[in-house]
Amino acid sequence: MDTQDKKPDIPEELQKVGVTDLKTIIQTRWKGVLYRFIPKVSLSISLPKEKKGAHLSRLIEAISETIEEEAAVVYNSLEELEKHILDSLVKKHSYERGEITMDTELVIQKQTPVSKRQTMETYDISVTVIKNGDAYAKKLEATAVGSTVCPHAMEHSKGKPHIQRAKATLAVETGYDTPVELESMITIIERGFSSEAYTLLKTEDEKYLVEKMHANPRFVEDACRHILAEAKQAYKKSRINVRVISFESIHPHNVLAEAQAET
Amino acid sequence: MDTQDKKPDIPEELQKVGVTDLKTIIQTRWKGVLYRFIPKVSLSISLPKEKKGAHLSRLIEAISETIEEEAAVVYNSLEELEKHILDSLVKKHSYERGEITMDTELVIQKQTPVSKRQTMETYDISVTVIKNGDAYAKKLEATAVGSTVCPHAMEHSKGKPHIQRAKATLAVETGYDTPVELESMITIIERGFSSEAYTLLKTEDEKYLVEKMHANPRFVEDACRHILAEAKQAYKKSRINVRVISFESIHPHNVLAEAQAET
Amino acid sequence: MDTQDKKPDIPEELQKVGVTDLKTIIQTRWKGVLYRFIPKVSLSISLPKEKKGAHLSRLIEAISETIEEEAAVVYNSLEELEKHILDSLVKKHSYERGEITMDTELVIQKQTPVSKRQTMETYDISVTVIKNGDAYAKKLEATAVGSTVCPHAMEHSKGKPHIQRAKATLAVETGYDTPVELESMITIIERGFSSEAYTLLKTEDEKYLVEKMHANPRFVEDACRHILAEAKQAYKKSRINVRVISFESIHPHNVLAEAQAET
Amino acid sequence: MDTQDKKPDIPEELQKVGVTDLKTIIQTRWKGVLYRFIPKVSLSISLPKEKKGAHLSRLIEAISETIEEEAAVVYNSLEELEKHILDSLVKKHSYERGEITMDTELVIQKQTPVSKRQTMETYDISVTVIKNGDAYAKKLEATAVGSTVCPHAMEHSKGKPHIQRAKATLAVETGYDTPVELESMITIIERGFSSEAYTLLKTEDEKYLVEKMHANPRFVEDACRHILAEAKQAYKKSRINVRVISFESIHPHNVLAEAQAET
Repeated sequence: MDTQDKKPDIPEELQKVGVTDLKTIIQTRWKGVLYRFIPKVSLSISLPKEKKGAHLSRLIEAISETIEEEAAVVYNSLEELEKHILDSLVKKHSYERGEITMDTELVIQKQTPVSKRQTMETYDISVTVIKNGDAYAKKLEATAVGSTVCPHAMEHSKGKPHIQRAKATLAVETGYDTPVELESMITIIERGFSSEAYTLLKTEDEKYLVEKMHANPRFVEDACRHILAEAKQAYKKSRINVRVISFESIHPHNVLAEAQAET
Repeated sequence: MDTQDKKPDIPEELQKVGVTDLKTIIQTRWKGVLYRFIPKVSLSISLPKEKKGAHLSRLIEAISETIEEEAAVVYNSLEELEKHILDSLVKKHSYERGEITMDTELVIQKQTPVSKRQTMETYDISVTVIKNGDAYAKKLEATAVGSTVCPHAMEHSKGKPHIQRAKATLAVETGYDTPVELESMITIIERGFSSEAYTLLKTEDEKYLVEKMHANPRFVEDACRHILAEAKQAYKKSRINVRVISFESIHPHNVLAEAQAET
Repeated sequence: MDTQDKKPDIPEELQKVGVTDLKTIIQTRWKGVLYRFIPKVSLSISLPKEKKGAHLSRLIEAISETIEEEAAVVYNSLEELEKHILDSLVKKHSYERGEITMDTELVIQKQTPVSKRQTMETYDISVTVIKNGDAYAKKLEATAVGSTVCPHAMEHSKGKPHIQRAKATLAVETGYDTPVELESMITIIERGFSSEAYTLLKTEDEKYLVEKMHANPRFVEDACRHILAEAKQAYKKSRINVRVISFESIHPHNVLAEAQAET
Repeated sequence: MDTQDKKPDIPEELQKVGVTDLKTIIQTRWKGVLYRFIPKVSLSISLPKEKKGAHLSRLIEAISETIEEEAAVVYNSLEELEKHILDSLVKKHSYERGEITMDTELVIQKQTPVSKRQTMETYDISVTVIKNGDAYAKKLEATAVGSTVCPHAMEHSKGKPHIQRAKATLAVETGYDTPVELESMITIIERGFSSEAYTLLKTEDEKYLVEKMHANPRFVEDACRHILAEAKQAYKKSRINVRVISFESIHPHNVLAEAQAET
């Protein structure tokens, strides 16, 4: 009998046993375009009170076999790939609840606002699938950067604000089959700021962005509410979380606004 | 009327608005001994749907006035100091729910196991107090480092294991008045490993620790269960969370075990 | 006249002005295999004392145009791509000294030692090219993870060691044309440990690796010397730096050994 | 013979062998005021080619004995304490070159600019002492946060800039006996920004700071030159390094300016 299958000294159920901070390479084909990722993967299963340990090499195999097989089958999305890993794992290692998360980056090709140059923008994303018995759920998270322009300072200093970089994370938890697109989540986040940010900006683009900022003063509270309200419209039957952090230019600390909603 | 007190464009309630990553200096007197900390502080309040923003400088004042006043009054613990900040804040800025967290380090003087030398050990801790209307709750978290020794490898390789550093975090959420000591949480965590770790070890101490490790092989699952079982005994009317991560010496990724319980 | 081209208040030369922490997507074709990376890029130039600022959008353009053009031309290596960016930049923005670094991850397909399964291993790498007038230099850096097994503990505890994960970084600075392969650097690093680490290990592989560790006790000092000696053999006309850190299982702190050599 | 004193397989000299990321507690008395720190300590020595390893417990003892003895002797500064550790170590473990670094935080009590409230400000600092034979050198490093206001955007957008948080690090390497005060380094850094930052700001302070920013537009290049020029005046017989990073509000990446000088 394997050590893992023995009875443990202390018969407690463990909600999660698995691997974390595992880096690997995967690819997906989304709307015809090939995306390659080097995500950080966490994969865990529940462990009943009568088993000493999980057979962790089977978790790794479920990941690596799904990835190898990719040459033949390319998944449409990270969540489709993750669901396949959970389904493949349950045949190797029984479990009640399994959860897989991939933290990685999505690169989107955009145009600069005025000069219409091509610019590549990179966003942190996190995609989770949970299998609980026969039910599947997912959680998608995206983070984007923009600016906040302080309306309070503008009122007190004749239109002169303090301005800073801010970062917002939108998370949507929903059923596996509910359609949620990371690209649309990023669009919603970026509309929440006083202005969005670009990697490339020519002088005319910078001028446009600066005018937009000043015309659009927002607290982090305002940014958070804009993102929340749009997300509530876009994602039904979901649990939504928005968290905005601004890296204040007048303070060494950061300011935060956070909100949740269920639709 | 202040900008913050105006009606927002979008009337959504925000669960948390506040400051985060604020570094300051505080001191407490615990059982007669003076402790000084430079914590990272997060302080947030709920914001109703009809207010555009929070007056953040009042949050900072609630923190700094409580700290200044310390010369006269020294609090017994971080949670006592935090409760005082929340009580002082509610007089400056009305709120329904307020939450303050301090992330810092606790230094404990210990003796090495055999040579009985003095050694200073440093632990990451996090202390949160939540005020919800008139009710107070708290959450204490402590993290300690030790080793796990693989019982599976020992069975297959004639007593030769792989060994690695592991890190465990124990969190206890409970009523504000339930007594929970960070020192006892750290003791419980350290007993969960194959062996605890020390900053200073003379040759005879190292020999003792290595013998202890090899006599005490444990998976992260075992460590997690030991800590959970002891914490369940020690902390009543609490929500307990244990998370153990081992930095595997045979893998580039980490292994994790996590469990929750309510007592 | 552009603001950047005006005279600064204080006529000091700046050794580096540029962009950092810029994330983008690139691809290279190395020995026929396509590699895709999402590196963190730093690109800087020297700024003479009579210019107020650098035209930073030209630095971004030099990066993005080189990447776009990739559809047609695919570079053999990160350093070839970086040299092209520096050459393209000097036509847009004169400079005396330019430097570009890409920090990213290299994924290598390997076989497990006994069961001969395929396993994907991911390594942190950093590739820098420096253009100084007409001269080019490069610096390649790779980091890999393995184990150290303490020979001192084995002597004192009847063959029972403490074991831990260790991490080693090898850096090679040399002329642009000197051939240095990241893959061979990683091989040299991994041979320095008591044993290398794998993402996937079946029971027979784990047994093999544990036996190898115990047969091969090494201090971090030993690991550092093994890597240094092999690197000195492999890389001529180079400046070599080796840094090994072990995440001690008996201590909460880390142990380090570092060495330099010129060949 | 101890394992460490044996001949190594590969007779290479190692420039640094030691401990790193060691957290401990220390205190100093500077101009009559008691400061307590929980620094991250690195302590390393050179290891000759004929010794297999360093006796690392002696390094820890040199640190911990110096700290314990503090009850009686309180050092004036971190560098004085570090010199004492290096002198104490050389009696326990011979070495040619020893180096110790403490990374910690300095808390300074300041007044807000207009309302004259007390505010506690926290700065990252790093203090290194190097003993090379009988010669001692030191390196002091301080980091502070402030704002940069873009003069280029102001010219193109009728006085409307983009503004962001920036961070500057000033490092001064000099002989052990050359007087260099961390407080004065921080003052020099803060004067380099468009404006400094404060933890606490009442409305009138915020108004003052926002006016100051807008009256004082600076690129990171300008900030870097201001700090460099002042540091060259203040610190003689020194090697000075200045590094300024701005967390751009219009870009997701950061902008950097770096300069060196010898006085």
